[in-house]
Amino acid sequence: MEKQKLSVKNSITDYIEWLAQYGASADGGVTRLLYTKEWMDAQLAVKTEMSSFGLETRFDDVGNVFGRLSGTQSPDEVIVTGSHIDTVINGGKYDGAYGVLAAMLAIKQLKETYGAPKKTLEAVSLCEEEGSRFPMTYWGSGNMTGVFSVQDAGEPRDESGVSLQSAMYENGFGKGVFQSAYRTDISAFVELHIEQGKTLEMSGRDLGIVTSIAGQRRYLVTLEGECNHAGTTSMKWRKDPLATSSRIIHELLLRSEEQPDELRLTCGKITAEPNVANVIPGRVQFSIDIRHQHQHVLEQFHEDMAALINGICHQKGIRAMIDEYMRIEPVPMDERLKAAAFETAAENGISCEEMVSGAGHDAQMIGRCYPACMLFVPSRGGISHSPKEYTSARQLEIGVRALTDLLYKLAY
Amino acid sequence: MEKQKLSVKNSITDYIEWLAQYGASADGGVTRLLYTKEWMDAQLAVKTEMSSFGLETRFDDVGNVFGRLSGTQSPDEVIVTGSHIDTVINGGKYDGAYGVLAAMLAIKQLKETYGAPKKTLEAVSLCEEEGSRFPMTYWGSGNMTGVFSVQDAGEPRDESGVSLQSAMYENGFGKGVFQSAYRTDISAFVELHIEQGKTLEMSGRDLGIVTSIAGQRRYLVTLEGECNHAGTTSMKWRKDPLATSSRIIHELLLRSEEQPDELRLTCGKITAEPNVANVIPGRVQFSIDIRHQHQHVLEQFHEDMAALINGICHQKGIRAMIDEYMRIEPVPMDERLKAAAFETAAENGISCEEMVSGAGHDAQMIGRCYPACMLFVPSRGGISHSPKEYTSARQLEIGVRALTDLLYKLAY
Repeated sequence: MEKQKLSVKNSITDYIEWLAQYGASADGGVTRLLYTKEWMDAQLAVKTEMSSFGLETRFDDVGNVFGRLSGTQSPDEVIVTGSHIDTVINGGKYDGAYGVLAAMLAIKQLKETYGAPKKTLEAVSLCEEEGSRFPMTYWGSGNMTGVFSVQDAGEPRDESGVSLQSAMYENGFGKGVFQSAYRTDISAFVELHIEQGKTLEMSGRDLGIVTSIAGQRRYLVTLEGECNHAGTTSMKWRKDPLATSSRIIHELLLRSEEQPDELRLTCGKITAEPNVANVIPGRVQFSIDIRHQHQHVLEQFHEDMAALINGICHQKGIRAMIDEYMRIEPVPMDERLKAAAFETAAENGISCEEMVSGAGHDAQMIGRCYPACMLFVPSRGGISHSPKEYTSARQLEIGVRALTDLLYKLAY
Repeated sequence: MEKQKLSVKNSITDYIEWLAQYGASADGGVTRLLYTKEWMDAQLAVKTEMSSFGLETRFDDVGNVFGRLSGTQSPDEVIVTGSHIDTVINGGKYDGAYGVLAAMLAIKQLKETYGAPKKTLEAVSLCEEEGSRFPMTYWGSGNMTGVFSVQDAGEPRDESGVSLQSAMYENGFGKGVFQSAYRTDISAFVELHIEQGKTLEMSGRDLGIVTSIAGQRRYLVTLEGECNHAGTTSMKWRKDPLATSSRIIHELLLRSEEQPDELRLTCGKITAEPNVANVIPGRVQFSIDIRHQHQHVLEQFHEDMAALINGICHQKGIRAMIDEYMRIEPVPMDERLKAAAFETAAENGISCEEMVSGAGHDAQMIGRCYPACMLFVPSRGGISHSPKEYTSARQLEIGVRALTDLLYKLAY
């Protein structure tokens, strides 16, 4: 028998704790992977809760849940707000969930205070953003924007070999029973999210207004040299790909410091073969992840990086292969929405600042097609994707207030 | 039934091919791990062959095999020559084996040509040098010099959990049936070996006369920083142990170039955690292997290295731990033996050069207690510990000639 879920919920914090029971892990984390039982239970619970708020609720054909409050003057201009319901494995309670719950609560409060809006408001609980079960991300917002469709579900498989399609079918989605996820009626998308960094914590401000979601490029660099005996091989004849990798990573980081604004460069992964203390490696692979809000900065760095790697490797007799396996262009947030968000914060005396989001979000996918904006609240220690994820009740409330007032400004 | 082993053997090359049949792998390599059947069969075959040459043969209590030609004037002054019979997993035909077989053939030829020597000559097939089955090395020469004794065999275990002691017992050794391995009567030890590097190949010379066996120090360096999101963590707040490792390895290599003679520095092993492209690692470990023929150079570099690592880590907020897990002091070869080796080469018109051995050898263990010297023949491409190990018949013969004449000079 399922344990009784929390039923009395007054604050955003109560709602966070309530939703965190679906897929709760022993150490206070949450695991809700797309189309699993925990995920479906949570999505159904969200839908029921939205209904209890007096919103018209529905699933779409990939399992996104909407709670709609129709507009009286321009019902076809829809202002959508929300985030995603899925999590990484043993993630935190706030990532995604906060934006979904804050959206529901904001619309509930607007409805109770002001009645029906002029334009339609919709809270959305997007089915998937993290890419933690299947090797793809943004399944919910990607289907809404037409980047993906249910026809794309045949290929991707989870670790046990289950296809996205069969997992989707098992939950009743993807068969046309529900309305297609594809939308053409969105006039604005607003996503409230935890920062997942510590910019706000360090500045002491309560709200981040995102100007742009950084573009990302990811590379796997493979260097092939000559595997040899550490004792008998003279330094002058070595073709040592780990020595060369170290120099490249060091020089790329120095180069990144010279970039305008902040280019973030991370080498997170490195492997050497055979990886034995007394053997000069024959082959080393390392990853490079670069992020920046300006396309031209990423482009120029890409060029410089390739020249630097090839130059050093040529000099050292090392064969270099650079595989760019991910490229996501920067997405600027909508100017009008950003301005409205700043006004709202000012009217409410909320301390805020502009910031770039280094992480990807649904607003990035939707922002390519529709006006979008994002609001951030602080994350303690910048920690995310961990049971240690935490934002205080006060900071969560400030975020909900900013969202509520922004939606009022846009829809009433 | 065991396949028929080659029986007609005329040249050193024939003997190399003959012995390589014991533990032969499909791709032309050899695997003879200490106290395995392949090892025991090979050791017995060597003993039988030595007997057929008219040498007095015996095992000692750890399984070293000796073939003795007693001296007529000073029988208690023993000149021992040989190397080891064991191999790495899928190693080559030459490493160790060449020195054993050349020793037998050299003494055989001296006996046939000149009869009994003044001093005693012994060919030895040492039981173990590589450390490829049990986590220890130099079991044969270590027992001869008293660095180890059979009492040390209880601890070390192979990958299947078999102790060195029980493997030794299974073969009949270690129980006092044979004479103790410990020797006090060695007046010289001469080891002929393949170079395992490409110094001779590059210089075009046929013989290397080793001046010193380099000292080695091995370290495992652990850097602990802060695991964080690659997108949301500002460059200025990062504690990135992979960025820091890269800088350290790069700077250490630059520093190594400034050392006198040649300090060999190798980082062969590196691991990052969690080792994911879009996560700043929390922890990185890498190995450092340094080798040099002079103790004071190693000592000074050790100091400089620790200062450099601690300095950079302090600056970057990284916690550094440096674990020195191996220290072997340099062992100079005996001046008188070296001089005799040079004379021999000159008399025979063999092109030769002085060199430092970067790899460890039995002569290093024995050279700490007794006068020792080593002769090297070229290794094609410097390749060793591989089925691709190769030295031409001509080069093998030159080595045997040099050894034979050196033994003549010492014993007759």
